[in-house]
Formats: sequence, C-alpha cells, structure tokens
Amino acid sequence: MAIDATKLVVFPKKAFGWAARDSSGVLSPFHFFRRETGEKDVAFKVLYCGICHSDLHIMQNEWGKTTYPLVPGHELTGVVTEVGSKVKKFKVGDKVGVGYMVDSCRSCENCADDIENYCTKYTQTFNGKSRDGTITYGGFSDSMVADEHFVIRIPDSLPLDGAGPLLCAGVTVYSPLRHFGLDKPGMNIGVVGLGGLGHMAVKFAKAFGAKVTVISTSPKKEKEAIEHLGADSFLVSRDPEQMQAATSTLNGIIDTVSASHPVVPLIGLLKSNGKLVMVGAVAKPLELPIFSLLGGRKSIAGSLIGGIKETQEMIDFAAKHNVTPEIEVVPIDYVNTAMERLVKGDVKYRFVIDIGNSLKPSP
Amino acid sequence: MAIDATKLVVFPKKAFGWAARDSSGVLSPFHFFRRETGEKDVAFKVLYCGICHSDLHIMQNEWGKTTYPLVPGHELTGVVTEVGSKVKKFKVGDKVGVGYMVDSCRSCENCADDIENYCTKYTQTFNGKSRDGTITYGGFSDSMVADEHFVIRIPDSLPLDGAGPLLCAGVTVYSPLRHFGLDKPGMNIGVVGLGGLGHMAVKFAKAFGAKVTVISTSPKKEKEAIEHLGADSFLVSRDPEQMQAATSTLNGIIDTVSASHPVVPLIGLLKSNGKLVMVGAVAKPLELPIFSLLGGRKSIAGSLIGGIKETQEMIDFAAKHNVTPEIEVVPIDYVNTAMERLVKGDVKYRFVIDIGNSLKPSP
Repeated sequence: MAIDATKLVVFPKKAFGWAARDSSGVLSPFHFFRRETGEKDVAFKVLYCGICHSDLHIMQNEWGKTTYPLVPGHELTGVVTEVGSKVKKFKVGDKVGVGYMVDSCRSCENCADDIENYCTKYTQTFNGKSRDGTITYGGFSDSMVADEHFVIRIPDSLPLDGAGPLLCAGVTVYSPLRHFGLDKPGMNIGVVGLGGLGHMAVKFAKAFGAKVTVISTSPKKEKEAIEHLGADSFLVSRDPEQMQAATSTLNGIIDTVSASHPVVPLIGLLKSNGKLVMVGAVAKPLELPIFSLLGGRKSIAGSLIGGIKETQEMIDFAAKHNVTPEIEVVPIDYVNTAMERLVKGDVKYRFVIDIGNSLKPSP
Repeated sequence: MAIDATKLVVFPKKAFGWAARDSSGVLSPFHFFRRETGEKDVAFKVLYCGICHSDLHIMQNEWGKTTYPLVPGHELTGVVTEVGSKVKKFKVGDKVGVGYMVDSCRSCENCADDIENYCTKYTQTFNGKSRDGTITYGGFSDSMVADEHFVIRIPDSLPLDGAGPLLCAGVTVYSPLRHFGLDKPGMNIGVVGLGGLGHMAVKFAKAFGAKVTVISTSPKKEKEAIEHLGADSFLVSRDPEQMQAATSTLNGIIDTVSASHPVVPLIGLLKSNGKLVMVGAVAKPLELPIFSLLGGRKSIAGSLIGGIKETQEMIDFAAKHNVTPEIEVVPIDYVNTAMERLVKGDVKYRFVIDIGNSLKPSP
C-alpha cells in the first residue's frame, strides 16, 4: 500500500500490526502510522488484545463496510507510554484498555447521557472513521492512541490478558443486566448461548447474586455450564418438555446467539414483567406474535456494548468480584488459526493475543 | 334456554340483560340469575356499561372460546345495593364499577404483586369461568355481584357514564404509561391509532405532562387529534418523509392498533431507551429485525389491562385530573346498531349504554 504523503504529516508515529488485505480475512504483518499524542490523548503500548466474532465479520466484509487494509481488534489492554498536556485521568505507566469505541460526537443526547455507544456517530476502534477522515486501526498492533475519555483504567487486581475481553464481551452483557434491572440478588436469569458473550453473562449474573439457567441447543454443554462456570441449571432449548416445565420461571434472559432462532419458546420461560434482551446481531427478522408479550407484560429488547462510564464501572465491578473471562492466550502468529477455530466454535471461551510478547516488527 | 335446576339453587337472584345466542353476535333480551351476595361480595345496580371492541370479538366467537348465551359488558358502573357481612371497602349507596376481571386465583406471584391481570387463572367479567364452575355474565344487565376486591370505587367527581370506559380502555393505556416510566412530565409520547384506547392514551399522556404525537394512517384525524383531544402533533404513518423527519424523537409509544401493521417505522421514531408498547391484540406475528432494537437499546413490550390496585389508582387520577373518555350514550335498544357502527369505526370514541334508564325487563 502506498502511504499518502499528507497523512504522513498528520500521523508521524510508526506503528506495526497485523492486517487483513481483502475479504479472505487472512491476516499478515502490516506497517502503518498513528497520530501524534494530542492534548487530550493517551498513547499506550498494547500488551494484549482479545478476538471477538465481530472482528471476523468485519475482516471478511460480511457487513459490507470494510476498508482494507484492516487492522482488527477492539479488546486491547496495555500500559500508558505518553499523555497529552490536558490529560487528567491517566499518567505514564498506568494500566489501561480500549474497547469498541475511540470517539463519538460528544454533543448529542446519547453522548450527554453517557451512552456514547448509541451515538449515531461514534467511531469504532477499527474500521471506523476518525474526525480527521482517516480509517481507524485496531488492537492487533503494538500501540494505540485515543482520547482519554475513551480509555478505561484497568484496576491492578485484574490481569491484563483477561481484562481485554471484558471491554467488549463483558460490557455487552453487563450493560443490559444492569440497565434492565436484571442485577438483583435472587433473580432467576437465563443465558442463551455459551460462547464468548454467554459465558461472561453467566459470570456477571452469578456475581449479581442471580440463579442462572443456561439455555443451549447442545446438551453436551450442561456439565461445563454447571460444573465449570457455576450456572445453577441448564435447559436444552430443543427439548419441548424441558422448556415447558420451565415456563414462567425467569425474570430475564440475555440472548447471545446471533444465528437465527425462535424466540417464542424463550418468551414462554419469562415470568410476568420478564425481559428478553438480544445482544447478538441476528440478521433475519424475528417472528414475534404479540400475544406472547401481552400475557405477562413481557418485553423484548436489544442492547449494544455499553457506554464509557458504564464500561469503567463494569471493569471495577469485575475486579472487585473477580469476574474474568476464560481465555486461551495465543501468539500473533497463531491468529489465522485462531480465526478458523473461532468459526467452528472451538474456543473456551475467548482467544486473547499476547501482543507484548509475540508481535515483533519484521525488519 | 332451559335453566338448570341446580343452578337455580345456587343463583337465586333474578337478573335481566341482553345476550348474544350465537356467533351472529346479535343481542336480545335475556333473563338469568346471579348468585346470592356472599360475605365478601358487593352487589350493585348497573347504571352504565361501555362497549369495547373485545365484547364484539367474543360475541362473534372470533377467539373461539365463547359460551352462549353471552351477556357482554366489562366497563360497568352503578350504585351498591347490598354488601356481604365481611365487606370492608363499600357500603350501600356507594358509586362503584367493575372492569375486565371479577376474580383471580389470589395465590400466585402475580396476584401477590397486585397484577391479577396477569394471573393465568383470572376470571373475566363475562364469558369467564367462576370458581363454582358457572360462566360469568357481564354488564349489559341490570345488576352485578362481585367480590369486593374486584370492585372499584368511583370518585364522586367522575360521572358514572364516563367512568365505565376508564375501567377497561382507560387502565389499558394508563398501566403501560406508568409501568414503563412513560409518565414523566416533558416526555415525548406517541400514540398509534385514535379509537377507544388511543384517545384515552392521548388524554392520560397529556395529564402526565407529556408532549403527545398521534400517529395514524388517516390524515383526516389530524384536526380532531390536535384541536379536540389536545395532542401536540400528528404523523401520517404512511408518509415516509414525515416519519423520517420524526426519527428518534419519542421516549415511548402506546400502539393501540389491533390490525396487522409494520412496527419498524414506529421503532425508528424512538429515541435511545425508547419503548414501543403494544396494547392491541395483533393476531398476525410481527416481523421484527433485531437490528432495529440494538441501535438505541430499544424495547417492544405488551401490556394487558391493569391490576385492581392500579385500576383504582387510575380512576382516582382521572377524577383528580379530569380525564374522561369521549362517549356517545345510547339506549340498550340501540346496542346492535352500535355494534355495527363500532365495526366501521364510526364512534367518537366509546359507546356507553344507559342501562339505568333504558333496560326494562320484558314481561
């Protein structure tokens, strides 16, 4: 790729990462530039970066909006190397992270309400459009620079490798549990799907004091859900008898499955006032009979990551209650294999790339 | 119809009303019996009864569960004539009413939470199954007897004719406005459909201090909505430009339309955290793309009438804030014509039968 000379002026800092060059999604080493650390910017050395399914969707241009070369990664953590003159929250040496966003309009109602994640102009950490018009590069790279507002402080008690996935997968399930009032001790909470998001939903719901029921198409996951992740019970969603027996037992459900699936049986599991919250981006429209919601004043809602203030709150809660993802740490050289395994669901439950120890600039 | 001799023993009190005998739904005079006033029962002379669309659905057996003869009517008001020995809330001469329910199981979580309307065993005021196994007769009749728990006190300042429709149409829209937090002054509330339910939603939302937008397929209703009912603005749902211009402006929407209609354009009108509440029993399943809910953490919910405690609260609020339905009072002889006009939407906005002055027993 030819570097635009004008961009070199704006972005003087050398950076190195791995990028996809086309919709094959295959990643390979890539030299690029990041902007100078601005007045309100925090620059940090990236040490770890989680791999999320949406990285893969965008690497392969499944949503049709990918600009190549693409440096994925939006669950990155590291250590501050430089701060701008007006930065108040951070200093060199602090442990920090960045999630799905690095900017937003800062002037709309959503931004004012600390839900920048619903700002229609927020800037994604990778493949997003910056204020200067350039496309953002993500965390599969050795360095990051971002406005301090979008930088999260990682508490000392949290390991930096495990903290990464909290910044996207973690807050994606934490936020709806909080916002929809599904965080009260003693509640019965269902979690549909047991992947990167689902296993975090089990852990956060347990930390809130809930009784957690995992709902999955696969009976094989029962042992793991209960014995390893601490769920209280398990339902096979394809077993009508099990589902029938559990009618009207749950206060809320976090549905993490992005493949098309029927929701009426899930709504049937809800008590009155129950809420089914979808956090997976199901492409096909749902079939939703209104009768299923009327009897019991039930809701179906959507939720998308979380705001910055809430992300900080989530990470502090995770540190205090020892909520960390189950991760498999891999070197950057393994990333293409990791992506193949992710497609097959062959990961418990999140890959994290050991950027600090494995990403070495090619000569 | 032959009267079962055993029923005569249980139900010794003569009553008179109008009943449908088959799915033609045509109503005609009908003699029947009501039970003796029990210890906790309140008996009252019916003076007025509203006509709701669900009366018509059930008269014509559209939901397949009608027992004939059917005495419809579930928006009835009148004056207490007798109270049981253990009745605490009412005395002879009190102004009272009964809405959609006359009993519930009294032991489930919903009943304990004062949402008897979501008790799976509640007894409908008409065409419902009583504890003694008999089918209930509704308010198109001269008298009613019901457990005091299900009897609502009508404040003196409310006219008895206008109070009737509050007991079903009123609480059906009041309850979701309250429950879903759509009752805060200054909020922007949408109301879809301008019939019996919709016009009450406009009035209650205005009484809560909202700015109200009526959303209708019919541009002809604009003048009426704004000039007569006090709505602040009006959107023609079939006009994509108008709908587009109103994107992300509403905190919540009460959708009263029971005919099948697209909801995605309505969801588009919601701000972040907005709620679309369906109170119409739309028969055909909705097509619901999850993406429409994710961006903005939006919800779609159902709501069905209201609990008894909330119905009393609603009627007290209505009295205090002078919220009454627009009604056309008709004699019982007119009821079949009224039903025909109801089908055509030819009523502003609720028929109320003047039972007290027009229902005379045939010899």
